[in-house]
Amino acid sequence: MSKEQKIRVGITHGDVNGIGYEVIFKAVADEAFTELCTPVIFGSSRVANHWRKTCGLEDVRYNVVDSAREARDGEVNLVNITSEEIKLDCGMPTEQSGKAAWLALDKCVEAFRNREIDVIVTAPINKEAMKMAGFPYPGHTEYFEHELGNDFKATMMLMCEAPQLRVALVTAHMPLEDVAKAVTAEAIVEKLRSLHNTLRKDFAVERPKIAVLSLNPHAGDGGALGNEEQTIITPAIDEACGRKIMAFGPYAADGFFGSGKYARFDAVLAMYHDQGLTPFKVLAMENGVNFTSGIPVVRTSPDHGTGYDIAGQGVADPGSMRQAIYSAIDILRRRLQYIRAKANPLKKQYVDRSGDREVLDLTKTDDTPDEILL
Amino acid sequence: MSKEQKIRVGITHGDVNGIGYEVIFKAVADEAFTELCTPVIFGSSRVANHWRKTCGLEDVRYNVVDSAREARDGEVNLVNITSEEIKLDCGMPTEQSGKAAWLALDKCVEAFRNREIDVIVTAPINKEAMKMAGFPYPGHTEYFEHELGNDFKATMMLMCEAPQLRVALVTAHMPLEDVAKAVTAEAIVEKLRSLHNTLRKDFAVERPKIAVLSLNPHAGDGGALGNEEQTIITPAIDEACGRKIMAFGPYAADGFFGSGKYARFDAVLAMYHDQGLTPFKVLAMENGVNFTSGIPVVRTSPDHGTGYDIAGQGVADPGSMRQAIYSAIDILRRRLQYIRAKANPLKKQYVDRSGDREVLDLTKTDDTPDEILL
Repeated sequence: MSKEQKIRVGITHGDVNGIGYEVIFKAVADEAFTELCTPVIFGSSRVANHWRKTCGLEDVRYNVVDSAREARDGEVNLVNITSEEIKLDCGMPTEQSGKAAWLALDKCVEAFRNREIDVIVTAPINKEAMKMAGFPYPGHTEYFEHELGNDFKATMMLMCEAPQLRVALVTAHMPLEDVAKAVTAEAIVEKLRSLHNTLRKDFAVERPKIAVLSLNPHAGDGGALGNEEQTIITPAIDEACGRKIMAFGPYAADGFFGSGKYARFDAVLAMYHDQGLTPFKVLAMENGVNFTSGIPVVRTSPDHGTGYDIAGQGVADPGSMRQAIYSAIDILRRRLQYIRAKANPLKKQYVDRSGDREVLDLTKTDDTPDEILL
Repeated sequence: MSKEQKIRVGITHGDVNGIGYEVIFKAVADEAFTELCTPVIFGSSRVANHWRKTCGLEDVRYNVVDSAREARDGEVNLVNITSEEIKLDCGMPTEQSGKAAWLALDKCVEAFRNREIDVIVTAPINKEAMKMAGFPYPGHTEYFEHELGNDFKATMMLMCEAPQLRVALVTAHMPLEDVAKAVTAEAIVEKLRSLHNTLRKDFAVERPKIAVLSLNPHAGDGGALGNEEQTIITPAIDEACGRKIMAFGPYAADGFFGSGKYARFDAVLAMYHDQGLTPFKVLAMENGVNFTSGIPVVRTSPDHGTGYDIAGQGVADPGSMRQAIYSAIDILRRRLQYIRAKANPLKKQYVDRSGDREVLDLTKTDDTPDEILL
């Protein structure tokens, strides 16, 4: 991204039978929006036209291009991912819709590798359709970890600006039955480390405070309702603290969110999906954003699904999609600033004070280097 | 309760080292309050005086009596449960505080049996203190089920007026590890039956609609994230529907609460503690009430704990305690109305239309009698 060029936001069209195009068009339609960044939609102009008409969005104009390289600043751009026709079945998961969603992802990743786009925002996909198409990942997060992760581990983080709330999960998409086994001290420490780094790098929080939730109700009530708090979670918090990560807890989830205690922390680490996402979605309302932290690419998405039940009605709320684009831009800017700030640091100097005189020891190097930058 | 007499609300003082007395006094202090009902606190006048002074509530006047029979309408009454001194340790669970809480419960139950009070509201107790005192129940709900249940099963229900939300749990106080095993079709059907009855009887909802949550994230995503939805929850919903209970679902908890779908139902059945209580506490804020449904006595309590961390500071919010008292009164009134309305029904008449002439069949009786009244 050159200084003259606006940030280029790659947007995949997601499942073509859902509300993807509707929320994308509603989000980017505003002129102020193309002042801020250059949206590059990866999709199909035929499908786009269909939804534009169905949802009463004929006013939205866009520039069809063959590759993101040709995208024009100040306009909404659409890269045609295929010249073939895509069959639409409004509100239904189909193999075709899964394939089209996957193809958009691949084209978008390719453009990112070629440095034609700067950040990626994905419209929602449907798990069933992706399965029919043979997509081998449980979701977007794992796909991007594999494609653009450079061996880094991705963490799913839900974020919201007002109220400020960031929630990450130790375990995500697994049956509830398996959760207790999967919550290990190693997993918690690893997630805390990753969260700590992303808060510093992507959210400009110099000394992040992280709250850790309990696994059991009432935080186990002193062992009466389960002992993972004593045997796993507390030791993990202690270990993280030993590594200079400010982690606190474990807190019982209901009281923690109910009393508004989350407002005192920069992020919350929940033990499983519904524990973290249910209060998050209640609090974030229409403004929640899903951010894949921990990997080199900045990727966000709205926190809703394909909206099959309201597809084509023109009633979908673009708030979360708009927020996802804003967040991706904000995160990229903060990350670049962080990288610039730490690019060429003064070396730490060690002075040996053990003897009578203070001696500058030039043989020693900093033994707590900054976490590797992406 | 005679017509002339106001509804008598028995209030147990709960854990004496917490915010019990503070929220009780703040809740009943208003004159309008003693116009509405007659509060009868089960506690100790010495302890009450201590907290009155500590929390700056010297203005609150009350009438000390030996038994609830002597309680006076238009005043705040306090039944001295013991003449012995109760040692206080502000903000700490102790054997003494557990014993005092237990004694108040026993005295209150005795008064209820003697028809000296009409409903029961309990201030919070501490599980650890109760354990030290030898209290053999996991909590209030089980205590009242045992003492005043008449062999009926108690169900813990969280309720809130604005937004209107009622949440009941299939499993409550158990380690998360054991939840999946404990969620059976029988347990779900039984809770749905109990919820259906309490909604009709205690909340005057003639044809209640109940939402059932899923156990697994994304409602199991078609089996990919667990199959209890297909093997247990859906069959249970079907069975309940066969019994003329309007149950719907299973719904994934995050989307259900996040999208505000709960507003379309009269109650929500959650599968486990944090799944139901976390969003409830976020939505209900300071106005949540815990109601023990399914048993003959009407018993409510605030949905917060003993508040050890803020005990004696005078900052505790009485909103939930006040709401608990109002709710108990409302529920009792609706239940009495329901009983009166159904007390002497016209018999359903069966007309045999199978032959040429319509014949009134006086031998048949109604084969779907109203659920037994408490």
